[in-house]
Amino acid sequence: MNLISTGFSMGSARVISSHKASTHFFLNFHKLIISKIPLNTLTFPFGFSSHRSLTTKQRRFGTNIKSLNKYDTDGNSSTTSFTWDDVSEFELNDHSTLQGFFDKVHLNNRNSDKQCEFMPFVIEDQIVGFVHHGFADHLKEFKDVFIFHKDNSQSDQVSNVTLHKNLTTPEGRTRAVADVIKCLGKELIPGIRNELYPVTPFHGAPALFAMERAAAPYFGIKAYGVHMNGYVERDGKKFLWVGKRSNLKPTYPGMLDHLAAGGLPHGTSCQENLIKECEEEAGIPPSISVKARPVGAVSCIDINGFRYKRDVLFCYDLKLPESFYPKNEDGEVDSFKLIPVSHVANIIRRTHFFKANCSLVIMDFFFRHGYIKPESFGYLKLLQSLRNGDCS
Amino acid sequence: MNLISTGFSMGSARVISSHKASTHFFLNFHKLIISKIPLNTLTFPFGFSSHRSLTTKQRRFGTNIKSLNKYDTDGNSSTTSFTWDDVSEFELNDHSTLQGFFDKVHLNNRNSDKQCEFMPFVIEDQIVGFVHHGFADHLKEFKDVFIFHKDNSQSDQVSNVTLHKNLTTPEGRTRAVADVIKCLGKELIPGIRNELYPVTPFHGAPALFAMERAAAPYFGIKAYGVHMNGYVERDGKKFLWVGKRSNLKPTYPGMLDHLAAGGLPHGTSCQENLIKECEEEAGIPPSISVKARPVGAVSCIDINGFRYKRDVLFCYDLKLPESFYPKNEDGEVDSFKLIPVSHVANIIRRTHFFKANCSLVIMDFFFRHGYIKPESFGYLKLLQSLRNGDCS
Repeated sequence: MNLISTGFSMGSARVISSHKASTHFFLNFHKLIISKIPLNTLTFPFGFSSHRSLTTKQRRFGTNIKSLNKYDTDGNSSTTSFTWDDVSEFELNDHSTLQGFFDKVHLNNRNSDKQCEFMPFVIEDQIVGFVHHGFADHLKEFKDVFIFHKDNSQSDQVSNVTLHKNLTTPEGRTRAVADVIKCLGKELIPGIRNELYPVTPFHGAPALFAMERAAAPYFGIKAYGVHMNGYVERDGKKFLWVGKRSNLKPTYPGMLDHLAAGGLPHGTSCQENLIKECEEEAGIPPSISVKARPVGAVSCIDINGFRYKRDVLFCYDLKLPESFYPKNEDGEVDSFKLIPVSHVANIIRRTHFFKANCSLVIMDFFFRHGYIKPESFGYLKLLQSLRNGDCS
Repeated sequence: MNLISTGFSMGSARVISSHKASTHFFLNFHKLIISKIPLNTLTFPFGFSSHRSLTTKQRRFGTNIKSLNKYDTDGNSSTTSFTWDDVSEFELNDHSTLQGFFDKVHLNNRNSDKQCEFMPFVIEDQIVGFVHHGFADHLKEFKDVFIFHKDNSQSDQVSNVTLHKNLTTPEGRTRAVADVIKCLGKELIPGIRNELYPVTPFHGAPALFAMERAAAPYFGIKAYGVHMNGYVERDGKKFLWVGKRSNLKPTYPGMLDHLAAGGLPHGTSCQENLIKECEEEAGIPPSISVKARPVGAVSCIDINGFRYKRDVLFCYDLKLPESFYPKNEDGEVDSFKLIPVSHVANIIRRTHFFKANCSLVIMDFFFRHGYIKPESFGYLKLLQSLRNGDCS
């Protein structure tokens, strides 16, 4: 059954539950056809107060950043309470500005004024991370692992932290730091995943050692990931496959997500990782996922307490056949829905439904596919802000 | 006649002379099919010495930057002497690195260490440009137009230049600065075009005044432009339409160029300008060019003598029907050729045939279309370097 050629022409959208993959069910969104945002409505100048036309439900979910702490960028959020029905509210024709996009950039780049609270983490004369002075106090007792240096003899201020000179090999460093992380316990570093991230000054450089994924932000280690926009094109119109995370996921439960994405573990290439995630998260066979096209990268830098999160996300586009239906294989996705790109733009701007860092990758898609135009006030500023972090 | 479906399957490429538009002629490139660079050959690490396999002709044209001053980024070069036959030499299977791409980035971003030789040009408390101390000496006699400020009374060093306080309106400033440029004469500022560029702190801000295009680099004014990659897709393979500039053009004569591109004059939107350039340079009717998709921007900063060139280029993609043939209307293009993207990649890396700033926009195309992959050493560095200038 070709739903895009039948369903969409009737104004319907596809929803696929991973739990009912064999009996796909579909919700009608009667407003879909009449509500599509013309692309040129993204070109209004800043300051246009578009909140005036919102419904009660839109106001409920489309609140400002401060009131949505539970949807923050740390991932340890409570289960979100929206449904696909709530998502459909944001199909309404919405003549708004780039401001909602800037809000999502800011949500991924908080507290830049607090960089001074961190000291560089240096290995082999290269800065690989940043450690909060408060967090450093916990590390100081591990004198055979971490060494703290002062600027000069006059100052009490620590200028940087490095590893003990006896830790000369990647393997030795990995073991020693892992032991410290274990000792610190999950109260200080929650959400241990038993997954190693490479520690490098820049992508492609040999790893100086590897570190538990959950600990990376506490050491300001850059974390790399792959994020894929899976889309379908029909009659020149594009639709994005959007996943809704399982309510049982420890991080960002119930939130909207890409069709496939994942952190880049130590020793795995971007393409290998993407093919694996495609298979596990969306049931996309390698014969299709190998066609995913690398299209660039976004980055952000987010400070929250002791955490100094430096993420670099490699972006991929995968144009899927109309006949393709995603099917989650690992229980991490509740359901999928194919949504017109213009509608996704509204969801990004108006809600906090998407896992925060997905917004950056989807905005990158909007730029590359012409959904945001140079005539929009703030075009270049928004474009640049998608690589606000150290994208190296 | 569908040349792509016939010609390319036979290993041919299309060349269209604007002077012989009614009698398109075609050169056979017999090596085309066997020589296409597999995409994964772009993933070799730095340092691989690929010059070893070059032919004599490749060595002749593929020389290093320093020996190619006549192809520099200033545009006032002598007529180049290569032909489409020379271009075809670079089809050869070429297992090289990203280094050739980095070379082209550097060619557009020279002498960054000389920024200290320039002072800010400030209007209404906003930096709009940079003026060389040597060039400033010529401006000092125009005391009713330019005012020079010192850091403090102790120092003789000028800290910035601004306009006289009596020049309060954009129109008044435009006239006064135009008069100075006229007085300075074409020996100091060659290549006057009688075309005005807006002077703004950032794109989209109201213009504080407007300045003759040729003078913009002498005042470090940011110059905006639109550049379009026109491409054709067949069986999943992409081909770029490449223009060869007329040997009579005052700037970059005989060099390779985009299908359509142009500086953004004062008071014109990007889309309006692109549609105009498409019509004039390639005979693309508005019914087709309106479909050109904005896909982002690149930027560079190039210092050469008194010139402080700050360019921001809005990038566009236009997917053209296979039946489309460009036809130059304004005499500025000698001929066009449709070239496989992988071959264009070799031309960019190995030669200086392309007008320098086109390389940046075409590399951006390579990234967005997956021709450069995250597995290539230097991927993120090259990606970032495409916005080396102030992209605002």
